Amino acid sequence: MASVQDISVSASINLLSALAFLLAFAFLRLQPFNDRVYFPKWYLKGIRASPRNSGPSVTKFVNLDFRTYLKFWNWMPAALRMPEPELIDHAGLDSAVYIRIYLLGLKIFVPIAILAFAVLVPVNWTGKTLDNIKDLTYSDIDKLSISNVPSGSKRFWAHIIMAYVFTFWTCYVLYKEYKIISTKRLHFLASANRRPDQYSVLVRNVPPDQDESVSEHVEHFFCVNHPDHYLTHQIVYNANKLAKLVEEKKSLHNWYTYYQTRYERNPKNRPQTKTGFWGLWGKTVDAINYYAEEIEKISEEEAAERENVMSDPKAIMPAAFVSFKSRWGAAVCAQTQQTSNPTLWLTEWAPEPRDVYWDNLAIPFVELNVRRLLMAVALFFLTFFFMIPIAFVQSLASIDGIEKVLPFLKPLIEAKGIKSIIQGFLPGIALKIFLILLPTILMIMSKIEGFTSLSYLDRRSASKYHLFVLVNVFFGSIITGAAFQQLHKFANQAPSEIPKTVGVAIPMKATFFITYIMVDGWAGIAAEILRLVPLIMFHLKNTFLVKTEQDREQAMDPGSINFSTSEPRIQLYFLLGLVYAPVTPILLPFIIVFFAFAFMVFRHQIINVYDQKYESGARFWPDVHRRVIIGLIISQVLLMGLLSTRGAPKATPLILVLPVLTIWFHRICKGRFESAFVKFPLQDAMVKDTLERATEPNLNLRAYLQDAYIHPVFKGMEFERPPAIDEEENNPLVSTKRNSRKSSKTGSIASPDAGV
Amino acid sequence: MASVQDISVSASINLLSALAFLLAFAFLRLQPFNDRVYFPKWYLKGIRASPRNSGPSVTKFVNLDFRTYLKFWNWMPAALRMPEPELIDHAGLDSAVYIRIYLLGLKIFVPIAILAFAVLVPVNWTGKTLDNIKDLTYSDIDKLSISNVPSGSKRFWAHIIMAYVFTFWTCYVLYKEYKIISTKRLHFLASANRRPDQYSVLVRNVPPDQDESVSEHVEHFFCVNHPDHYLTHQIVYNANKLAKLVEEKKSLHNWYTYYQTRYERNPKNRPQTKTGFWGLWGKTVDAINYYAEEIEKISEEEAAERENVMSDPKAIMPAAFVSFKSRWGAAVCAQTQQTSNPTLWLTEWAPEPRDVYWDNLAIPFVELNVRRLLMAVALFFLTFFFMIPIAFVQSLASIDGIEKVLPFLKPLIEAKGIKSIIQGFLPGIALKIFLILLPTILMIMSKIEGFTSLSYLDRRSASKYHLFVLVNVFFGSIITGAAFQQLHKFANQAPSEIPKTVGVAIPMKATFFITYIMVDGWAGIAAEILRLVPLIMFHLKNTFLVKTEQDREQAMDPGSINFSTSEPRIQLYFLLGLVYAPVTPILLPFIIVFFAFAFMVFRHQIINVYDQKYESGARFWPDVHRRVIIGLIISQVLLMGLLSTRGAPKATPLILVLPVLTIWFHRICKGRFESAFVKFPLQDAMVKDTLERATEPNLNLRAYLQDAYIHPVFKGMEFERPPAIDEEENNPLVSTKRNSRKSSKTGSIASPDAGV
Repeated sequence: MASVQDISVSASINLLSALAFLLAFAFLRLQPFNDRVYFPKWYLKGIRASPRNSGPSVTKFVNLDFRTYLKFWNWMPAALRMPEPELIDHAGLDSAVYIRIYLLGLKIFVPIAILAFAVLVPVNWTGKTLDNIKDLTYSDIDKLSISNVPSGSKRFWAHIIMAYVFTFWTCYVLYKEYKIISTKRLHFLASANRRPDQYSVLVRNVPPDQDESVSEHVEHFFCVNHPDHYLTHQIVYNANKLAKLVEEKKSLHNWYTYYQTRYERNPKNRPQTKTGFWGLWGKTVDAINYYAEEIEKISEEEAAERENVMSDPKAIMPAAFVSFKSRWGAAVCAQTQQTSNPTLWLTEWAPEPRDVYWDNLAIPFVELNVRRLLMAVALFFLTFFFMIPIAFVQSLASIDGIEKVLPFLKPLIEAKGIKSIIQGFLPGIALKIFLILLPTILMIMSKIEGFTSLSYLDRRSASKYHLFVLVNVFFGSIITGAAFQQLHKFANQAPSEIPKTVGVAIPMKATFFITYIMVDGWAGIAAEILRLVPLIMFHLKNTFLVKTEQDREQAMDPGSINFSTSEPRIQLYFLLGLVYAPVTPILLPFIIVFFAFAFMVFRHQIINVYDQKYESGARFWPDVHRRVIIGLIISQVLLMGLLSTRGAPKATPLILVLPVLTIWFHRICKGRFESAFVKFPLQDAMVKDTLERATEPNLNLRAYLQDAYIHPVFKGMEFERPPAIDEEENNPLVSTKRNSRKSSKTGSIASPDAGV
Repeated sequence: MASVQDISVSASINLLSALAFLLAFAFLRLQPFNDRVYFPKWYLKGIRASPRNSGPSVTKFVNLDFRTYLKFWNWMPAALRMPEPELIDHAGLDSAVYIRIYLLGLKIFVPIAILAFAVLVPVNWTGKTLDNIKDLTYSDIDKLSISNVPSGSKRFWAHIIMAYVFTFWTCYVLYKEYKIISTKRLHFLASANRRPDQYSVLVRNVPPDQDESVSEHVEHFFCVNHPDHYLTHQIVYNANKLAKLVEEKKSLHNWYTYYQTRYERNPKNRPQTKTGFWGLWGKTVDAINYYAEEIEKISEEEAAERENVMSDPKAIMPAAFVSFKSRWGAAVCAQTQQTSNPTLWLTEWAPEPRDVYWDNLAIPFVELNVRRLLMAVALFFLTFFFMIPIAFVQSLASIDGIEKVLPFLKPLIEAKGIKSIIQGFLPGIALKIFLILLPTILMIMSKIEGFTSLSYLDRRSASKYHLFVLVNVFFGSIITGAAFQQLHKFANQAPSEIPKTVGVAIPMKATFFITYIMVDGWAGIAAEILRLVPLIMFHLKNTFLVKTEQDREQAMDPGSINFSTSEPRIQLYFLLGLVYAPVTPILLPFIIVFFAFAFMVFRHQIINVYDQKYESGARFWPDVHRRVIIGLIISQVLLMGLLSTRGAPKATPLILVLPVLTIWFHRICKGRFESAFVKFPLQDAMVKDTLERATEPNLNLRAYLQDAYIHPVFKGMEFERPPAIDEEENNPLVSTKRNSRKSSKTGSIASPDAGV
C-alpha cells in the first residue's frame, strides 16, 4: 500500500510535469513561427493570416515583446470567455457538447464531493478500526475510507443513505443534461443552413436487375414508391482502388519535393535514393529523376483507373444517395421500410457528405452479419485475453515483485525517494502503454463491421474501447493488482460472491487510482495542450516540403477530438468517482481537478486548434449517458458487495433497489430523449420546408444536390453523370422501359416546384 | 425413481383417460342437441342451421342412426383434409399459423428422434455403467440414457456430434418456417380485403391545447404535417363506465329471463329472490318485478351516462384514430416520428377495430413507465416466490414424503398398484393446479402495463407465462423434485457450476417429465376436444335463458385459442424435446405423439369450433421463434454442464460454440424476417393503393371509415360525431381558429379524390 507520502511525491511529480508542459506551451504558443500549430483553426477560418508577411524579420519567428510573456496565463480565461452559442457557431455542436461531458463531471462530482466530505469523511475518520490493527500496512488515506469503520457498525447507514443521495443526484443531473442537449440538438438541426443530407437518404442493398442498371433501377423504384417526393439520386462508384492511387501519388509527390528542396539548398550534391522498401535497399538511383518517373507512371495508372471506374458497370456499387424534393420526403423515406424483404432497399439518413465512409457502402446482408459475428468473437478475446500481459506487468511493477525478479536491484529500490517514484509511477505507466496500442485495432475492427459513416465508426469504436477499459483497466487493476492469485478463485465463485470479492478490494486500490488519475488525467491533459507531435511534424514539413503558402496551409495538422478513445477514458473517471464517492471520498478532489482542467484545456483546443472531420450534431450523447448509467450501476453493485462483507447484511436488499431504479430511469430517459438523436420528426421537417418554400420559391434544389455526394477523388473534375429526368414532375408513374435516356440533357433547369 | 413399470401404468391410465375423452366426444358430437357446442363455427358462418327445425321430434335431440356411430373416428381425417389456403380463408391466418406450431414440433422432432434412436440409444445401451451399480435405484429407462455411459468415455463424442446435428437441424427448420410464415403473412396482408385498419393510425398522447378541443387539435396537426394524405379521424370517448353499465344490464336481463321462464313453466309458484349479494340474503321480494325494476333503473343510468359521455369534453380521451386517403399515407404516419418530443403524438398502426383494448388508450408517458416498473417487479416476485409452494407440494408428493407426513397411510400406499398411480400422477397434477390459477393474473398484469390491443395483451401475457413455465415448471421440477435441498446450495454456486448442477439432474428427471407429458399433453388435449365446460354451460343456458333462435345463437360459446397460455405450454414441450434429445432420447416419442395428437385436435377445433376474437396476421410468430431459440440455448448449456461432470471436459469449449452460433442465427433471422411482422412496407402499400385507384376510382373512403373505430357500446346508435371538414381538400394549410364548425353538415359527400 502506498502511503500518504508516496501519494504526495507522485502528486508533486505529476503537478511539476503538468506545470512544465503548461509553461512550455505558454512559451511556445507566443512564438510566431508556432502560430500555425497552436491556432490552426483561425487560419482555416481565414481570420488569421501568416505573421511572416510583414514586420521585421526576427519578430516573424521569435516573440520579443516581453510584456506578452508576463501575461502567459491569459489563455485560460480566454478559453472560458467565449459563450456557448458562439462556440457552437465556431466549432460545431459535436465539439461544444463534447466539452460538456467534462462539465457534466463537474456538475455531478462537486456537490457529491462536498456532501461526502461533510458527512462520510467524519464518519470514517472517527471509526478508529485501523488504529487497532498493526500488522496490516494500512496508510493514512485508508483512515478516511470505509475501511476504518468497524464491522457491523451502525455508521454504515450513513454510507447507504449517501449511496441513495448520490444516485438521485447523478440521475437528476443526467436527466437535466440529456434534456438540455436534446434541445440543443433539435435547435441546431432546426436552425442549420440548408445541407444536402437534409434532403438525402442513403439507400443500400439495391437488388440487381437484369434489364436495368443500378441507376435506372433506383430511379424507377423511387419514382413509383415516392412519386410526389423523389427528386434525384447519385450512384456510388467503387473508387477504393482509385483513392489508394491518389494517396500514393501524393506521397510520391512529397518525396519529390523533399529531394528537390534538398538539391536546391545544396546544388553540388544531387540526392540519391534506393529503389527498395523505404529507400533502404535496392539499386541506387538519382532521387529526383526516380520520383519524377514514378509520379509519371502512377498518374497514367490513375487516369486508366479513373476511366475504368467511370465506364465499367461493375464499378457501380448497389447503393445510392437518393434526394427528395423536401425534407419531409427524405424524413419519411429514411424512417420507413421500403419493401417486404427488409434486407433490400435499406434506407437510412444520409450522413453528411464529408462523414461518409465510402469503403463500406456495398456490403451484402449476410456478409455483414458474418463480419459482425467474427468481430464480436474477436472483441471478446481481445478484451479478456489482453488482461494476462497487463496482470503480468503489474505484478512485476510492485516493489516486492521487482525485488523478487531482480534481487540485485534491492538496495537501489529501497532508497526512500526511488521507492516512492516506482510505487507512484510504474503501475500507471504500464497500463498507459497498453492503452496506446489499442485504438487503431478497435477502429479497424469497427471498419470491418461495415458501418457507413465516420461518426458511426467513432461511436462503435468508443463502445469497444469502453468495454476494454472497464474490463481491463478498472476490474483488471482491482483484481490483479491487489491479488493476482484471485483471478482463478474468481472464475469459480458464486454470482453473489463476485461483487463481494471486487467490493472488498475497492478501498485498497484507492491510492493506485489516485496515482493513475494524476498520470493519465493531469499530466496527460497538459501534454495534450502542448501538441508536441504536431509541433515537430509541422516544423519538419515546413522545412522540407513547404514551398508555397498553400503548401503551408496543408502542412498544418489541426487534428480533431478523437472521440473513440477520449470519451471512454472520461467514462473511467466517472466510474472511479461514482465507485469511490461512498467508499474513499478522498479520491473525489483529484477527479474534480481532472474534470476542471480538462474542461479548460479542451475548450481552448476546440476554439483554437481542432478542426472536426464531420458534424453529427451530438449524435453521441445517448452513448455518453448510457455509459455513465453503467458506471452508476457498477458502483451500486460493488458497494453492495463491500457492505455485505462488512457485517451490514441488511444493506443488500436496500441497495439492490438502486440498480433497479437506475435501469428504470435509463429506460425513461431513452424513451423520452433518444429518438431526438435517431429520428427526424416530420413536424420539424414540415416547418423548415414551409419556411423555405415561402422565402425561396425559386430555389433550384436539383442543381444544389447534384454533386453533393460524389466520392472525394472525383471532386473538382468534370464528371459525366447519369442524366436526371425532368419528365417525372409531370408523370409520376414511369414506364419501366426507357429509350434514349443518355441523350437527354442534364436537367438543371429550375423547375418552379423543385423546392416543394 | 419411477421404473419402467410405473411409466407403463401411468401411460395406460393416461391413454385410457384420453381414449375415454375421445369416445365421449365421438358420441356426444353426433347428438344433434350438442351440435351447437361442437360445430359453432359453422353456425356463425351461417352455413349450418339448427337441426330442430324439421324432422321427427326424437331425432332432433338424439342421433338414432347407428351407422354414424360406426364411423365415429372420421372426424380425424376430416380435420386433416381441409387444405391450408382454405383453412386460412375459413379461420384466419392466426389460427392457421397457430397449428403450424405443432407442425413445427413434428418437423423438428421426428428426424431428431429417428437419428437419436439410430445413434444415441445403441451408444447409451452398450455403455453398461449402471449394471455395475447396485445400490442406486436406477430404472431400465436410465439404461437408455446418457447415465449409462461411463465417465470419461469416448462415447461422449457421439453426444457432442449429435448436439451439433440437432442444433443445425432445428435452426434449419426454424429458418424455413420463419420464411414460409412471413411470406404467408405478406401474402395475407396483400390479398386482404379493404379493412379500416389499413388506412388508420392510432395516435396517443395528444397534448392538451388551451384553445382547441382534442378533435380540432388532431385535425389541425395532421392537416399541417400530412397535408396530402390526411383524410379524417375518430376521437376516443372514455366509455369504460358506460361499458360496465351495459354489461350489468345484460346480466340483470338474464336473471329476469330466467325467472320469467321458471314462472311460465310453473305458473302456480311465482319465483322470489333476496335483494342482497347473489340472492343469498336480504329482503325477500318478487323476483320478476324486482329485476324488471332494476333493469328500468339501470337503463336510466345508462342513458344519463351516454348523454354525459357525448357532451362532456373531459370524457374525450387524448387519443384518436386518424385515417388517411391511402395505405401509403397511413404506413408513413405509423412508421415515423411526428414531433420533437417523442412522448407526444405517438403513432402506431391502428389495430383491427375488434382488436382494440379501449380501456388503455389514454395513459400518459410517465404513468406508463411507472406501471411497467411495478409490473416488472411484481412479475419477478410472482415467478420466483411461487416456486416455494410448488416445491413444498412436490416434496410431499413422493412416496417417501407421504409416508413421512402421514405414516398411517403406509400400508395403503405400499400396495403395488396404488404406488404406481401416486408416482405417476401426483407430481404432474400438483403442477397443473398451480398453472390453472395463473393466466388470469398475468393477463391483468399485462392490462395494467397499458397495451392497446387484445393481440398485444395476449402476446405479453404469453411472454410472462413462458418465463413462469421456464422457471417454475422446468427448472423448478428439475431442482426441487430431485433434491429440494439443492436450492440453497444453488444460490451460492459459481456461474460455471449452475449448468453442472442442473445438467446432472436432467437424466434423473426424465421419467417425471414423461408422466407430465402424458398427463398434461395427452389427456389434457383429449379433454380439450370434449369441451366439457362449454357443453354444460350451453345446456344450462339453453334450458333457462333461451327463448328465441337469436338467444340460442348467443348461448353458443365457441371460444377461441387462448394464445397467452397455450403457446408457452407448447414451448415447454419444445424445451423438453431439445433438452432430452441428446440425453434421454426415449422421451422423444412421447413428445412426438403429443405434437401429432394436438395438431389434429386443434385443427379440428379451429375448423369446427373456435371463433377468433381478432386477426393479427400471425403477428406472434417472432415470439414463437424466439422462444424455441431460448429452449435450444438452454438445452446446449445444460448438455455442456452435464458433460463436464462426466469426465468429458474438452466438451465444454466445443459445445460453447453452439450457443454463440445460435444467438447469431437468431439475430440473422430477426434482421431478415422480423420487420415483416412489425412494419408495413411502402411498396406493398403503393401497389394496393394503385390497384384500388384503378379498380374503384369512385370509392368513398371517408364514408367507409367514418364509423370504423367507435367504441362497441356506441355501435348501432345514431351518433352525433364531430363534423368532418371538406375544405381541407382544397386548402391544406388550415387557419388555426375556426368559427361555426358545429353548424357545417357531416361531410360524407363523395369527393373524387377521396381514394387517392
